[in-house]
Amino acid sequence: MNIPSYKQVDKAHIRVRQYAHRTPILSSTSINRITGAKLLFKCENFQKVGAFKFRGAINAVMSLSDGAAGRGVATHSSGNHAAALALAARKRGIDAYVVMPENAPDIKKKAVAGYGATIYFCKPTLKARESALAEVIAETGATEIHPYDNSDVISGQGTAAKELLEDEGDLDLVLAPVGGGGLLAGTALSVSHLSPGTKLIGCEPEGADDAYRSFLKGEIVPSNNPKTIADGLLTSLGNRNFAIIKEKVEQIVTVSEDSIVEAMRLVWERMKIVIEPSSAVPLGAILEGKIDPRNQKIGVIISGGNLDLENLPF
Amino acid sequence: MNIPSYKQVDKAHIRVRQYAHRTPILSSTSINRITGAKLLFKCENFQKVGAFKFRGAINAVMSLSDGAAGRGVATHSSGNHAAALALAARKRGIDAYVVMPENAPDIKKKAVAGYGATIYFCKPTLKARESALAEVIAETGATEIHPYDNSDVISGQGTAAKELLEDEGDLDLVLAPVGGGGLLAGTALSVSHLSPGTKLIGCEPEGADDAYRSFLKGEIVPSNNPKTIADGLLTSLGNRNFAIIKEKVEQIVTVSEDSIVEAMRLVWERMKIVIEPSSAVPLGAILEGKIDPRNQKIGVIISGGNLDLENLPF
Repeated sequence: MNIPSYKQVDKAHIRVRQYAHRTPILSSTSINRITGAKLLFKCENFQKVGAFKFRGAINAVMSLSDGAAGRGVATHSSGNHAAALALAARKRGIDAYVVMPENAPDIKKKAVAGYGATIYFCKPTLKARESALAEVIAETGATEIHPYDNSDVISGQGTAAKELLEDEGDLDLVLAPVGGGGLLAGTALSVSHLSPGTKLIGCEPEGADDAYRSFLKGEIVPSNNPKTIADGLLTSLGNRNFAIIKEKVEQIVTVSEDSIVEAMRLVWERMKIVIEPSSAVPLGAILEGKIDPRNQKIGVIISGGNLDLENLPF
Repeated sequence: MNIPSYKQVDKAHIRVRQYAHRTPILSSTSINRITGAKLLFKCENFQKVGAFKFRGAINAVMSLSDGAAGRGVATHSSGNHAAALALAARKRGIDAYVVMPENAPDIKKKAVAGYGATIYFCKPTLKARESALAEVIAETGATEIHPYDNSDVISGQGTAAKELLEDEGDLDLVLAPVGGGGLLAGTALSVSHLSPGTKLIGCEPEGADDAYRSFLKGEIVPSNNPKTIADGLLTSLGNRNFAIIKEKVEQIVTVSEDSIVEAMRLVWERMKIVIEPSSAVPLGAILEGKIDPRNQKIGVIISGGNLDLENLPF
């Protein structure tokens, strides 16, 4: 198993920064007053395709040999990774094949199609996704780019935290949501190397708490029928991801659905930015008292801003 | 009638920039593709109190003599100006008295109260507002700061376009929404002075088209039972505002409710920023074909981002 180190994040950044936005870091006087902390939000909702996922996808696609790239790339994804891979493939001028669950949000289906990928729909189970993907790969010879359990993807995702630490040194704490663990593992590589004194906490919905349970048990405990509004965090931890997370992350905390919605609403209302529910989990952890934010300088990775505006929880 | 010129905008900026954010100018690859233009959005939704109104309010409050300031400031407003005046008064350490219609959005009532102003509720008619305000002023000796028909307010609002033109020269066109005309008149002072070759078009909801009709007729035609989702644009043009607008604005266009909602949704979805319906009117005018945007470099003033998230039109 090829597990990346910080050196890969550093190399990834050379590729990523040619194609991705260096997203802004925003703060809010009123959210700071409410929480008693100094919160610095790294806004990957402003990233290409509206999510940090573009970083990992572009790194993976640009790392392929010409021969492999010529046969295209393939993945299964509930959304943001699919759009990200489709755009990354277009940037390299190669084909992208995407297996998506038929119940994925409309906005994500449209985005993937809009970036020119070929979509295959399947039942919304991991098994159905994996077998559909295996068929596509057998047919096309495409390289699978896993949404999170992939060394180049993890390294690419780590570039968001690298930029955060370059722009705002001296953080007491960094918070990131955790689903499959691509963002959290990549963030862990950057934080542990660039700012060893900064703690990193992964934030997870109560209703999809496999990372929390895996972290406690010291081995991967897969999700069992996860359910949360944070639809980007339904997946279980990947192997590479867990290997990094268990070594470099301080703690995983879980957050209730109510707190996720409250945090999302607070960000929309006070900061005037659109974030998806998955992005609200870290602030939800603070509002719920799972993390004591007082007098801390805290970096929060806002993972994305893609959601169906017809299906808002408020 | 004291009508400001660009010189007052220039002086206002010295005061305004000490207290207000220099808001970012954002663009969107996908909205540019959809419209065929290069659109540059001056994002006053990120301004203090979530709207451009803070610029005019802080300029007016900071322009008062110490004697007048000591007796406080008063206004009637459906929302953003009230919050802006309340915060401006707090910055100077003086009292603010605000007459608000009882049906103003909750988020705006809370904001005004949160900034420490004393609120007086009245019926939602101009007459009720004016008589309530006259009583408050008779009682306190406060100075009225009108939401738009006020020279210092107009000058302050003009600083947003001044920053836009400083940061992005060479615009073919500037678009701003028009209600009472504070923003449009201030914008006209800056555009006509700083970039005389740039056209300025005011954008107004069909359901509150008094500026459009006034512009055509050459004299103020007050609103008659205006109705639009763009609740910041319900008021009729002020006298000072019209005097400036009829001289320096190229054209007023009207926009349907459907186009306003479509534009608002497009900005939320593609740019991941929260804007209020009033801010969506200029892009609505483009989507509706009222303005030909092709191959033009267009500055759009996004007026604010305050709205009740429970009452979204999608």
